[in-house]
Amino acid sequence: MYVLFKQIRDNPLLWLLAFVPVVFAAAKLWPEAHSLLFILSVVAIVPLAALLSHATESVAAKTGDAAGGLLNATLGNLTELVIALTALRAGEYMLVKASIAGAIVTNTLFVLGASLLLGGLKHHVQEYNRVGARFQAFLVFLASIALLFPSVVTRVDSPEFVAFNRTLSVGLAVLLIAAYGLGMLFSLKTHRELFASAGHAEEGEAVWPIRLALFTLAGVTVLVALVSEIFVESVQQAAEAFGMTPAFVGFIVVSLVGGAAEMGSAFSAARKDRLDLSVGIALGSASQIALFVAPVLVLFSYVIGPTPMDLQFWPGAVVMVLIAAITATLVTNSGRSAWFVGVLLIWIYAIFAMTLFLLPPGSA
Amino acid sequence: MYVLFKQIRDNPLLWLLAFVPVVFAAAKLWPEAHSLLFILSVVAIVPLAALLSHATESVAAKTGDAAGGLLNATLGNLTELVIALTALRAGEYMLVKASIAGAIVTNTLFVLGASLLLGGLKHHVQEYNRVGARFQAFLVFLASIALLFPSVVTRVDSPEFVAFNRTLSVGLAVLLIAAYGLGMLFSLKTHRELFASAGHAEEGEAVWPIRLALFTLAGVTVLVALVSEIFVESVQQAAEAFGMTPAFVGFIVVSLVGGAAEMGSAFSAARKDRLDLSVGIALGSASQIALFVAPVLVLFSYVIGPTPMDLQFWPGAVVMVLIAAITATLVTNSGRSAWFVGVLLIWIYAIFAMTLFLLPPGSA
Amino acid sequence: MYVLFKQIRDNPLLWLLAFVPVVFAAAKLWPEAHSLLFILSVVAIVPLAALLSHATESVAAKTGDAAGGLLNATLGNLTELVIALTALRAGEYMLVKASIAGAIVTNTLFVLGASLLLGGLKHHVQEYNRVGARFQAFLVFLASIALLFPSVVTRVDSPEFVAFNRTLSVGLAVLLIAAYGLGMLFSLKTHRELFASAGHAEEGEAVWPIRLALFTLAGVTVLVALVSEIFVESVQQAAEAFGMTPAFVGFIVVSLVGGAAEMGSAFSAARKDRLDLSVGIALGSASQIALFVAPVLVLFSYVIGPTPMDLQFWPGAVVMVLIAAITATLVTNSGRSAWFVGVLLIWIYAIFAMTLFLLPPGSA
Repeated sequence: MYVLFKQIRDNPLLWLLAFVPVVFAAAKLWPEAHSLLFILSVVAIVPLAALLSHATESVAAKTGDAAGGLLNATLGNLTELVIALTALRAGEYMLVKASIAGAIVTNTLFVLGASLLLGGLKHHVQEYNRVGARFQAFLVFLASIALLFPSVVTRVDSPEFVAFNRTLSVGLAVLLIAAYGLGMLFSLKTHRELFASAGHAEEGEAVWPIRLALFTLAGVTVLVALVSEIFVESVQQAAEAFGMTPAFVGFIVVSLVGGAAEMGSAFSAARKDRLDLSVGIALGSASQIALFVAPVLVLFSYVIGPTPMDLQFWPGAVVMVLIAAITATLVTNSGRSAWFVGVLLIWIYAIFAMTLFLLPPGSA
Repeated sequence: MYVLFKQIRDNPLLWLLAFVPVVFAAAKLWPEAHSLLFILSVVAIVPLAALLSHATESVAAKTGDAAGGLLNATLGNLTELVIALTALRAGEYMLVKASIAGAIVTNTLFVLGASLLLGGLKHHVQEYNRVGARFQAFLVFLASIALLFPSVVTRVDSPEFVAFNRTLSVGLAVLLIAAYGLGMLFSLKTHRELFASAGHAEEGEAVWPIRLALFTLAGVTVLVALVSEIFVESVQQAAEAFGMTPAFVGFIVVSLVGGAAEMGSAFSAARKDRLDLSVGIALGSASQIALFVAPVLVLFSYVIGPTPMDLQFWPGAVVMVLIAAITATLVTNSGRSAWFVGVLLIWIYAIFAMTLFLLPPGSA
Repeated sequence: MYVLFKQIRDNPLLWLLAFVPVVFAAAKLWPEAHSLLFILSVVAIVPLAALLSHATESVAAKTGDAAGGLLNATLGNLTELVIALTALRAGEYMLVKASIAGAIVTNTLFVLGASLLLGGLKHHVQEYNRVGARFQAFLVFLASIALLFPSVVTRVDSPEFVAFNRTLSVGLAVLLIAAYGLGMLFSLKTHRELFASAGHAEEGEAVWPIRLALFTLAGVTVLVALVSEIFVESVQQAAEAFGMTPAFVGFIVVSLVGGAAEMGSAFSAARKDRLDLSVGIALGSASQIALFVAPVLVLFSYVIGPTPMDLQFWPGAVVMVLIAAITATLVTNSGRSAWFVGVLLIWIYAIFAMTLFLLPPGSA
């Protein structure tokens, strides 16, 4: 336990943990103060996500390479998964889908872009392993094609089309999970030497004892789930109060909140000229959400949701995911980067964010 | 003739030739047994296509490099051309178009993908001539853009738009054939050294005497045409009986049948680590169908079809061709391959196939 | 002044300056002869654009590297800007937008393609600085994404959507100008060594004295503006008389006229195997129009236009810009070129031109 307290003492981000009890108290006392609850839950999720991420890495570090990689790959986006599952159980499918698409786009464009910009401001030209980057970018590209057809083909709301879409979405979910599994087999096992320096383990940071890590993993997951519930309940009305469209909240705000911890790691790695780590975090998260989290949510919706969820997105969201995927594929082609590459990615993200922010209500 | 019999004896695929007389007999005896006729004609076309392909290569081998390349390039997809001409004469434009788009996509994604996968399972990392691969991929990209506008611009069914579409389609057909001709000039003549190892000729396989080859070419073409007639007549109703959408049959089944022989060559070359040959067959077929077969069919429709055929495709088909072309361009960028690249291509093909298979009737 | 006369005497293109007084006289004498005025104004703009371009380069050459680059980058498309401003003041937003999209596409596909073709016909394989080419191609790609959303999201003509579109367009305009500024900082200042041989200055051609250059710059700009007025007034009715669609005129004719001078430089550089210069002119113009001219017009429309102009384009135009950008990004990937690459680009341009030429009236 001392290790945990030391970690918290040394990391100002974790001081925000103080807001976890505050948000629970506030939810009891003022259940209708949506804007307040929204802000408090956002502030409380950020440090929890950081703890979760560190606990996952510690467990992964203990369990040997292949199993550790697997664990990291499966639990790396636990925060996003828990938030989405909470929204799923509440039947908030719009929010679930916006947060999936948003997380893919945010990681591909904003996290990668800001890493390249921050790294590039310090280092003139940076190099990274283009095989690893392109591998992840292609996975996101594959997923964006899978999202395309349920969203584009269906135009009529006839019962026939609803059935078509549900069957197709389940089929695609199975395909994507299989692709994800094969991708792990490829990158962690058969061709791991090609991905040499793209390791995920944070050197220099203390690795927790396994018991503490497992205990933290379990406890913090429960806390994230509880805070997420407050977040999901308040987000819609808070958004209105702040004059933000639901699309903007789901796509941008939720993604930035859910990924805050990882962003910290990606940015600091880029400053240390360890761009492989940054690229791995950014594109790895994007591909994991696209090929693992999203399909798992579709399959889980048959068990825990009020009705099955399909993969039919708002067409604009699919276009954004597709553009993000193609951009990542084109940009990572050279394996070299300078600060302006980061600007390009962030600018595309800004175009998306601006569009979503201004969108008249009822059109997303 | 002995050579021909020896070839048939040694190649189990050619034993299926026994089904050629069977399909003719069945068509006489049970003209209404559509499902049976469909299956029999599929089984009969496969060995005929193999013979045709071998005869073309033998003639090409005899006639010297430039003329041989030209011949190979022109007759390499004779099976697809004959099937499509038969469907064209019957006025089955839906089927013609689905089979064109399907053949492009099947070659670009499935034949290339399965070659890379099968080759990659045997060889750790494979290299190929990226100039040749990208050349073919760009030709397919060009053709997919040509298909885009007649399919996207026209939304209204006014007579004005029909006329616009026909004129545009003829113009585009001429452009595509010219691009194909210039591409041959480039790759076979002015810059042939860049395409060094991408030769089409199958070493090790016996080359037939020229008279036998020409005789086979003529005779088998007639047989393919006759079997195609039965195939085209039965395919629609057979599809319904098997619960398959017409889009799926035209796009997937017809392409796989028409390209079966070439697939065999592409796969076996990949296993022998001769990836240039596999890539040449897969992307070469795709570009040939897109830039030669499709425009020739448009021009021929003015002579043999009941009404002129345009290049207006179902929008979903154009999207699939465009995605296939962009994917091929992105994937062939490095000139290196491992098994997972094959998985990626096959998975995108599976997304297409699944969408088409599940599509409710009347929406394609 | 003698330098100026010598230049005119030696350059047959500049003899067309004789048409400048002719067009003014004709506009006075036969104000209703639209077809005649259209042709005369086209012929008069070409040599003026050539003078303008040379004057800009001379001023840039005098003012030192960074400021010269800045000047070149800002005034390099002065002709297009003046034509567009004239159309803007006349409220001809359709024409302004068509000419913006057309200039981007014409530079990216036709000017680049014809340069690669002409250069490739003389030199077997040509090399160029791929960093510079990809930098410009990515800028065009960024701009095409910015154009996408105002054009795609808005479907309804409700007042809410008009307001959304105007605010979004202003926001995007600011983003694009900022990206353009940062891009100049990157390519002219922080990372200029990466763009080594892509200099814009025409060696061998006489540089004018600074006073002559400034005088020419001012005087010719006024002349271009006056001729543009006649051009904009006559273009619509002349197009009808020639049986051309307004979309074709705005997209193709205006772009070719406005860019005629630059094309000459780009083509002659390619023949001299100075492909970096050709690529710089073609893609540099495209990115400048997309990231500087277009957003400046949006912002200026609040000052000089009858109503504010937004960035909502005809969807077909956005698709063309997007295809042009992706094609440029894919093609410049290798940094090598042969004549067939030029054919590919020109062919895509021909597909666009043919579609626009045949388009039934009222559909663009």
